[in-house]
Amino acid sequence: MQRFFIASLALTPIAAVAAVFGVAPTALFFLSALAIVPLAKLIGDATAEVAARSGPALSGVLNATFGNAAELLIGFFAIRAGLIEVVKASLTGSIIGNLLLVLGTAAFAGGLRYKTQTFNRTAAHANASTLLLAVIAMALPAILVHTSPPLHRDITHEELSLAVAALMILTYLAGLWFALRTHAHFFASDGESKAPQRGITRSVVILLGATGAVAAMSEILVRLIEPVALAFGWTQLFIGVVVVAVIGNAAEHTSAIVMATRDKMDVSLQIAIGSATQIAIFVAPVLVFASAGFPAPMNLVFNPFELAAIILSVLIVNQIVADGETNWLEGLQLLVAYGIVATAFFLHE
Amino acid sequence: MQRFFIASLALTPIAAVAAVFGVAPTALFFLSALAIVPLAKLIGDATAEVAARSGPALSGVLNATFGNAAELLIGFFAIRAGLIEVVKASLTGSIIGNLLLVLGTAAFAGGLRYKTQTFNRTAAHANASTLLLAVIAMALPAILVHTSPPLHRDITHEELSLAVAALMILTYLAGLWFALRTHAHFFASDGESKAPQRGITRSVVILLGATGAVAAMSEILVRLIEPVALAFGWTQLFIGVVVVAVIGNAAEHTSAIVMATRDKMDVSLQIAIGSATQIAIFVAPVLVFASAGFPAPMNLVFNPFELAAIILSVLIVNQIVADGETNWLEGLQLLVAYGIVATAFFLHE
Amino acid sequence: MQRFFIASLALTPIAAVAAVFGVAPTALFFLSALAIVPLAKLIGDATAEVAARSGPALSGVLNATFGNAAELLIGFFAIRAGLIEVVKASLTGSIIGNLLLVLGTAAFAGGLRYKTQTFNRTAAHANASTLLLAVIAMALPAILVHTSPPLHRDITHEELSLAVAALMILTYLAGLWFALRTHAHFFASDGESKAPQRGITRSVVILLGATGAVAAMSEILVRLIEPVALAFGWTQLFIGVVVVAVIGNAAEHTSAIVMATRDKMDVSLQIAIGSATQIAIFVAPVLVFASAGFPAPMNLVFNPFELAAIILSVLIVNQIVADGETNWLEGLQLLVAYGIVATAFFLHE
Repeated sequence: MQRFFIASLALTPIAAVAAVFGVAPTALFFLSALAIVPLAKLIGDATAEVAARSGPALSGVLNATFGNAAELLIGFFAIRAGLIEVVKASLTGSIIGNLLLVLGTAAFAGGLRYKTQTFNRTAAHANASTLLLAVIAMALPAILVHTSPPLHRDITHEELSLAVAALMILTYLAGLWFALRTHAHFFASDGESKAPQRGITRSVVILLGATGAVAAMSEILVRLIEPVALAFGWTQLFIGVVVVAVIGNAAEHTSAIVMATRDKMDVSLQIAIGSATQIAIFVAPVLVFASAGFPAPMNLVFNPFELAAIILSVLIVNQIVADGETNWLEGLQLLVAYGIVATAFFLHE
Repeated sequence: MQRFFIASLALTPIAAVAAVFGVAPTALFFLSALAIVPLAKLIGDATAEVAARSGPALSGVLNATFGNAAELLIGFFAIRAGLIEVVKASLTGSIIGNLLLVLGTAAFAGGLRYKTQTFNRTAAHANASTLLLAVIAMALPAILVHTSPPLHRDITHEELSLAVAALMILTYLAGLWFALRTHAHFFASDGESKAPQRGITRSVVILLGATGAVAAMSEILVRLIEPVALAFGWTQLFIGVVVVAVIGNAAEHTSAIVMATRDKMDVSLQIAIGSATQIAIFVAPVLVFASAGFPAPMNLVFNPFELAAIILSVLIVNQIVADGETNWLEGLQLLVAYGIVATAFFLHE
Repeated sequence: MQRFFIASLALTPIAAVAAVFGVAPTALFFLSALAIVPLAKLIGDATAEVAARSGPALSGVLNATFGNAAELLIGFFAIRAGLIEVVKASLTGSIIGNLLLVLGTAAFAGGLRYKTQTFNRTAAHANASTLLLAVIAMALPAILVHTSPPLHRDITHEELSLAVAALMILTYLAGLWFALRTHAHFFASDGESKAPQRGITRSVVILLGATGAVAAMSEILVRLIEPVALAFGWTQLFIGVVVVAVIGNAAEHTSAIVMATRDKMDVSLQIAIGSATQIAIFVAPVLVFASAGFPAPMNLVFNPFELAAIILSVLIVNQIVADGETNWLEGLQLLVAYGIVATAFFLHE
């Protein structure tokens, strides 16, 4: 496993060389996409090591920022390339991917080994509540725009999105304060300390290096979205929702599934729901702010089907979480729901 | 009761004779509709007897198929007659009828006799989860079509519905596997064995005979939908949602209410929620497949108000189920909700 | 506190005099709005005293009617002035205000003093269920109209609203019967008897006098909505959703927050959820009936964004209520949700 992981890091230089020598776009697209997966894991590990040496506050910010490095960088380059719809689709895809695909695979894989997997309802419910509020906040600009005649005053979708993004970041920071200060005892780590074995300097170097590599791969990836979409007859929406989202969250996917097969469904749930929440409440508003100066800035006006898919996914997860148990059938139902939604996005113009 | 039941079986030959002699359409419509009710009960009893002699797997399939014989046959003949909207309306009506009308009547009638009726929250919640997923799967083609510009590629609503129907049947079969193999112990029968008193041959003959009779009555019924709609000034939607749906589920309605008045709210809930789930996850996809060769095949693109009514009904039931208790007021609230929805369908063009 | 309260009653004669002398509309608008707040509290106290001397049935009706006197009177005068959209907006605003603003402030303020505030999940859940059903009933005419082509037959939005209003009043009366007769033991008062200290005659006089004063203030307020909207560049929708709704519910707001800071979160929840439910199931249908004879009668066809805001608020509250606990972060999240919705209404044309 470890050896395979190290070998897979070689994908990055291979993709870089391939880009220089002008390999066929489709091959390069998948090469750079695959290269991001082990890099995201490397960033995750290095972040954990640096965070273990930092105070809790810095640690929280580090985890949020670098834990979402791939999503943030791909999003940033895609916005710069004017692919706003791809970015919004990839946010949608990250949320439903975490809630249906990741959780579904975890519950299914875990359910094949254990008859019933139980988890702490209270904690899962608290996470699901935060998720619901995060998603509703993220969705409100879209709901407003789709249910209204032209907006009052000369406000643009981007200005509206900026206002909402500011409130979301505020809530995100309040959540950090809650977790780190006023209610830190709720979040006491579960023992199992991942003893950092490497020096802090080495970790920081790895962190920065891997982030730089993800940035390079993301830029290649984003540049090839249009030719690949053309070649396969895929829409940009589909690439965003399915392809980009799966890549951007591959590290979380792996961890959640591994944890489920070890009967640690609590951790799987926390990863999947927490990751979806961070997309809504951290990645989305950061991208709105980061793009504010661009000619085509990002907004939060998702299309109606994206909205419906997100809201239904959250409802489904709330339902699954409410009884404190999962089994293989629930996992399969989540996967089927993901299959139907992905098919729908494939067909959506 | 038993005598009345046997007498009511005479409705079938009466309706058949009336059809031959050309009785007024309205009279014949209600005659054939009423004739289906005792036949559905007869099929239910015979199925239970045959199933008791079969292995659990065959038994599950038998119950699903023959337990929904009336819905399936009416749906089949209506599709053959090109009445696609009536069929979709009757699926909608079956779901909201089971969730609001049947459950409402059961909780109200039971609540008049018992102050508070309690039931097993865990089991009810598991059923409600499956219902939610079933309904979302069934609704996704409609959500996609209503929230999208014209679909990508030249895919038709029918092809989309076929793909979703295939996934739903797969989930249905997985659910049977779950209930019969991997988690059979959860579903151990509650003792109270309905000792089969008749020979298996006699049961099979009754099963086939009654199913044939339902088929004949359904054909008469469906042929008269248009003239009756015209005569009463009802829309086909209203006939589908209210009239056809109530007839098709009359057997379940009776059982659920009887059980509630015996303070067996668990059974009432299981019948109502289970029946609604089977409509979504079994009857709907089977009708999509059965109609695939017809000139006007069935699809799953429900209209927006049908969608809203279904989703709200599921939300309401989830709410009712969450606290493990019902009383007469909750029953009345469900009935009022049904009344409002039925009124709305009456007014819907 | 008591002295401040008595002093604030002087706002009513001041506003009346100001109206006679033709003060600037904006000043008069806020003067009359502020005058209503202490009057609503006075009515509440007097109602409690009269109710304590009445039988439980009369008491329930008194509380519902006079407890909502401000909403009812403002609504009545606004309908008479033809401001139907303002009235519907103020109903929307009352519901989301109670659920997000009041509950949010209560949970936040309480959470600053107590780490975690617990409450009785069963009671809160029962209230949330009734709220959900009330809101769905209130919303169905709008859902029907927005998801349908022109309605069948020549029925108007007003006739549809009257039919639904009748069913809602019926449910409301059934709820009173439930609380006062068949299940009165559930609602036994918590001891803490508010011993009525004044004579019944005095209380009735205060009740009638204060109600008359609210009527006068409401009439002034409503007459000034249009000029004030113009002066501030606000839409009538915004005035209805935010300004009128906050004033009409100021008394409930204060009580709910005071109770939360005394760690009586149960009472806060009951006030906020109960108040939102009464708006949906009592105030809305009463206004529909009261306006039936007017040239521009009231209907229940809320606009799609109002619908979305109401339904999302109810979902959020259900989520918050499910775990039986609140903390300052949940309060903040509710307030942020209110902020986003209010911003949205500010921008909505």
